[in-house]
Amino acid sequence: MAALIPALPALARVIRPSTLLEPARLRRRLGLDVFLASETFQHTGSFKFRAAYHVASSITQNRVITASSGNFGQAMACACQMLGKECRVVMPDTSAAVKIEAVREYGGTVELIDVKRKGRQERVRELAAADPEAYVASPYDDPLVIEGNSSLGEELGLLTRSLDCVLTPVGGGGLASGLVQGLRRSGRGIQVFGVEPHVANDAARSLRAGRLLANDTEPATLADGVRTLSLGRHNWAILQDGLTDIVEVSELEIQEGVRLLFLYANLKVEPTGALGVAALLARPDLFRDRSVCCVVSGGNVDPGVFCRILGG
Amino acid sequence: MAALIPALPALARVIRPSTLLEPARLRRRLGLDVFLASETFQHTGSFKFRAAYHVASSITQNRVITASSGNFGQAMACACQMLGKECRVVMPDTSAAVKIEAVREYGGTVELIDVKRKGRQERVRELAAADPEAYVASPYDDPLVIEGNSSLGEELGLLTRSLDCVLTPVGGGGLASGLVQGLRRSGRGIQVFGVEPHVANDAARSLRAGRLLANDTEPATLADGVRTLSLGRHNWAILQDGLTDIVEVSELEIQEGVRLLFLYANLKVEPTGALGVAALLARPDLFRDRSVCCVVSGGNVDPGVFCRILGG
Repeated sequence: MAALIPALPALARVIRPSTLLEPARLRRRLGLDVFLASETFQHTGSFKFRAAYHVASSITQNRVITASSGNFGQAMACACQMLGKECRVVMPDTSAAVKIEAVREYGGTVELIDVKRKGRQERVRELAAADPEAYVASPYDDPLVIEGNSSLGEELGLLTRSLDCVLTPVGGGGLASGLVQGLRRSGRGIQVFGVEPHVANDAARSLRAGRLLANDTEPATLADGVRTLSLGRHNWAILQDGLTDIVEVSELEIQEGVRLLFLYANLKVEPTGALGVAALLARPDLFRDRSVCCVVSGGNVDPGVFCRILGG
Repeated sequence: MAALIPALPALARVIRPSTLLEPARLRRRLGLDVFLASETFQHTGSFKFRAAYHVASSITQNRVITASSGNFGQAMACACQMLGKECRVVMPDTSAAVKIEAVREYGGTVELIDVKRKGRQERVRELAAADPEAYVASPYDDPLVIEGNSSLGEELGLLTRSLDCVLTPVGGGGLASGLVQGLRRSGRGIQVFGVEPHVANDAARSLRAGRLLANDTEPATLADGVRTLSLGRHNWAILQDGLTDIVEVSELEIQEGVRLLFLYANLKVEPTGALGVAALLARPDLFRDRSVCCVVSGGNVDPGVFCRILGG
């Protein structure tokens, strides 16, 4: 069917600008001057495309290998498809069928593995050894990823409205470090706050300790986009003094964030995308009398998960 | 709490431009060159604000009376609040609590009536007789409403991308007639197709008969935004030769439209908002090899209704 679809109009920029929303009813409920930068309508439905496209268009290699069960795999497959490159995505064989289908739809080759028998990184190393001319792409720990994500920081830095601080989910730190880097270019002194689930607070602990700490196991948070063991090293180097603070939120606050965005902003967001609003619920006094932008990182969520949250 | 919220930035236009989306996965599934003009992020979450604001800002009266259990009541209350005017909204006492709450949140006075004992229009006439200086606002049958909605047609007419036809829900005909009027100004010959549920096909029958016909009773369609008895007279005057055709869709196609927009465009839409996509499912051959814009009219839907549709 793909051949039936005309190409996107030549005038369209490749990276879609973030969708800026100022929902009156959400603002009233939170009692804060908040607006949203939603990446749910970015190519492949999350901010990850910013990084993936920058990586794929910057490297000389024509083949990319990556491990991702989530948004980065889709984003890299799509970016490679647009650029006429090949993309292999290593995914656990327990991944949801819709996620595997999405990567394939964007032309990616899916390598399913039994993670009990072989780790994802191990399989990536095998594939890389067999194809030394391929580029092995990390979803966050790569200066090219950070630079790609910095485009969102630049967009926000150019806004003519008042903006004191930006709230962003923190997993591997790719988005947060990109925002810090992009916002610095505006010279406006806009602060960046990270947001982490309590149960996945490795970055908050790292910031307090002044050194990079990791979770022992993949954290069991609803926000599947931040189920990482630790920040990447390149990300930590930027976030160590680039983040103003990290707000930790409960799983219930994440759910309430998803619900509020549905009810009062007409937005469909994945749990990770609601972390910013969850932080405003958790620590409203931190943001009183300030202009706050919540980055809604993505919208890819299964109907079943979504409706359980809405009904909960 | 409202006092805590700073005014929207002075630079923002009052009417928000439609959110234009070109979702690759939806396009691939439909096999058509389709894009979306989503009014789900318009003030009050639907296109109705375009008309309401134009009415409220054009009239000399300081008080508005209207009957609406849905989006027009919220939109008119919000427009009046912005302009420092008063708004009374007559609603059945069986209206969902969230809808009553929304009108009140925008500063509207809600007049609840027992529709078994007294019709909505009858109560509007009583209120108008008691306050002859108030403006009685129709949600569709008013040249000011049509002119307000024409702003969306103008926006679409100004797009630099190819655009052959626009698909729009048809209830009272306020949006469809506004689109026809606004698109005519572009002189591009862009066609307008209406979309109606089979069970509420008064406009399709009217078009075929060449005269204004009505449904016997309020149609029992999932698309609550088009549960009208007939087109308005001002709307019919424009649509009679302004519409290229009307596509009729089943309730199942409406549900499938809501699901496709959730899964492949990350959009939360109310059933009426999915009518355009439903028409592409019902009559794909009509739109093959053409550039099609589906107007997504609004996003206000209860979580319960929404999740029943997603799960169905």
